[in-house]
Amino acid sequence: MVQFADRMNLLTGSEIRELLKLTSQPDIISFAGGMPAPELFPVEGVKQAAIQVMDEVGQAALQYASTEGLPALRQKIVDRMKAKNNIDTTPDNILITSGSQQGLDFSARVFLNPGDVVLLESPSYLGAVNAFKACEPNFIEIPTDDHGMIMEELEKVLSTTEKVKMIYVIPDFQNPTGKTWSLERRQKFMEIVNKYEIPVVEDNPYGELRFENENMPALKSLDTKGLVIFLGTFSKILAPGLRIGWVCADSKILAKYNFIKQGADLQSSSIDQLIANKFLDMYSLDDHVEKIKEVYSKRRNVMLKTMEETFPKEAKFTHPDGGLFTWVVLPEYMDAKVLAKQCLDKKVAYVPGGSFFPNGGKENHFRLNYSCMPEDKIVEGITKIAEVIKANLK
Amino acid sequence: MVQFADRMNLLTGSEIRELLKLTSQPDIISFAGGMPAPELFPVEGVKQAAIQVMDEVGQAALQYASTEGLPALRQKIVDRMKAKNNIDTTPDNILITSGSQQGLDFSARVFLNPGDVVLLESPSYLGAVNAFKACEPNFIEIPTDDHGMIMEELEKVLSTTEKVKMIYVIPDFQNPTGKTWSLERRQKFMEIVNKYEIPVVEDNPYGELRFENENMPALKSLDTKGLVIFLGTFSKILAPGLRIGWVCADSKILAKYNFIKQGADLQSSSIDQLIANKFLDMYSLDDHVEKIKEVYSKRRNVMLKTMEETFPKEAKFTHPDGGLFTWVVLPEYMDAKVLAKQCLDKKVAYVPGGSFFPNGGKENHFRLNYSCMPEDKIVEGITKIAEVIKANLK
Repeated sequence: MVQFADRMNLLTGSEIRELLKLTSQPDIISFAGGMPAPELFPVEGVKQAAIQVMDEVGQAALQYASTEGLPALRQKIVDRMKAKNNIDTTPDNILITSGSQQGLDFSARVFLNPGDVVLLESPSYLGAVNAFKACEPNFIEIPTDDHGMIMEELEKVLSTTEKVKMIYVIPDFQNPTGKTWSLERRQKFMEIVNKYEIPVVEDNPYGELRFENENMPALKSLDTKGLVIFLGTFSKILAPGLRIGWVCADSKILAKYNFIKQGADLQSSSIDQLIANKFLDMYSLDDHVEKIKEVYSKRRNVMLKTMEETFPKEAKFTHPDGGLFTWVVLPEYMDAKVLAKQCLDKKVAYVPGGSFFPNGGKENHFRLNYSCMPEDKIVEGITKIAEVIKANLK
Repeated sequence: MVQFADRMNLLTGSEIRELLKLTSQPDIISFAGGMPAPELFPVEGVKQAAIQVMDEVGQAALQYASTEGLPALRQKIVDRMKAKNNIDTTPDNILITSGSQQGLDFSARVFLNPGDVVLLESPSYLGAVNAFKACEPNFIEIPTDDHGMIMEELEKVLSTTEKVKMIYVIPDFQNPTGKTWSLERRQKFMEIVNKYEIPVVEDNPYGELRFENENMPALKSLDTKGLVIFLGTFSKILAPGLRIGWVCADSKILAKYNFIKQGADLQSSSIDQLIANKFLDMYSLDDHVEKIKEVYSKRRNVMLKTMEETFPKEAKFTHPDGGLFTWVVLPEYMDAKVLAKQCLDKKVAYVPGGSFFPNGGKENHFRLNYSCMPEDKIVEGITKIAEVIKANLK
């Protein structure tokens, strides 16, 4: 009889990916995904980059290449991390991955035995939780407030818990809440982490999408002991269809990621890496990011304004300075899954928040994405969600 | 202090990938890799396919897509598997992976707990062994002869061994030996497998590269109980730089692979899948495979002829009907690693065979690849290897 590994008992399909299938019909107003706006993709630029790649290095684009990734692209990533995150590193500290999701999967495999403990923000990114589950850890959720993870709570857990092998955080425009950690929290966090010497996976897919106020330094830029593993990606600033992310880490740690990469898929797509690299040679990614931010910022404004105008005062929500998401907290007696079905009847979709809490039990939240819908649809969709919430008030 | 997971103790870099770095200098005659001949890549065709993709569906090429993979491409894979391997299946039984290496990694994660047993041919593909190691299994090597795995030995092991959770085989032009299983062996194998109901991972990257004699039916085509997981890839018949492979399996099993894929990297590259799909619309892959086979077949002929003329009779080697490799068995007192260094001094490289035996202890073998070098270099390189072997005869 066919027997599956124990880890398979823990894995079920991601709720989001299943929901996305339901919501792919064109008449649905969907705030459910976390996808970039496709109309902003630099289609012509990528086409021209692809043509040049095939003309100049066509054979290399179709051949096997190194596990670590294209040296020229890794150099550009190093330069970009310096400019955007104030991180000093070298191409030898970069591994190209198939999106930053692969960096999450590898992190679990590098650090976690079954029964080890992962600390993470409560709530945290569902896709990370699902990736980590394949290594059968236990999750301890650290409470958060508007300034990020609460450091007293983190220290309390660290000082009383065995087998903490990894801390996973998204300090910039967190998925799902849209929250950004304050400078003070970041500094205090690194102090604590340095004391306990626990590896930190800093996931930063949205950091460049800041609409206002000052950039915060990456945890990696404050890391003096080589404990922070930084995960970056071109998915939100260029295109997710290319599947290019990266891991930046201390050499001794990155060597382990490289071993995992060899067994996992040998290397990321040669042609995708060359196209991304050529695109960065030919065009200004900064200019492109400015265009994206202008559109997303307007959409965020429209969404928040509509929520302020239509949501009952019992529903609270975050006011993100950037990124793709806002997070709604309903009265505790409401179940966002039940409301989601009522919203779907009105052809509006969001992701219920329960599965962003790895240990479950919190169903009165949901996540809204504003990057993917035009402004008029945002007004229409949010207004309908408001009607559903009001109809469920006690 | 940073602690790594137990599995990391088992993982070291692949010997081949490390060697490939050494042998990438242009003056080395390398039989070490397993790479397709880059001069045969359909560079212009892929370029035209990429242009059409960007013109027609540019936004979709850059956006997220489904975990399972592009439906149109999965349909083409189904049709191709019917035509080439006589396998009856449906697109719902196909998952697109990042090369078939990813299918190997996923297979281990779906089936193996630490301490479980994997059966495989002795020797077997090093990259599979390395991928499996991340799940900490024990390996039992089943002896092989010129007709494939020896069925009496397989049955002996199955009837006396606990916790056998997976059997891994490469029945067509095996890596590293180039051997192909006879029809009788395949039928007997399925009989035994049906009796014990153990999942079989059938890795078939080279099956279409047959230079002579008749195609053998895939194990999957003989599978009546849904036990065979077939791994296919475009790496050897189109281009490995695109990283497109696939898993074909029974629905219940494939669902587990899909869960792993979600956590591992969400999906394979959208643009790579669309380019491959468009290439298959625009051009005849069969015509392209014919061209490859003509060149590889000549190179194999030159390599085998030169070996027959120059190798001492103490060195035996296989005569593959297709694929990329021949396998040399030296007298037991020789160490192929020692000879490899002497060959490298003469600017010729191969892969020592020891690491193709997961339990080690067999150093008198090496693998030769003939797909990647022009005929004159093959003559020159093999002649030099022959000199080294002769110089080491007792």
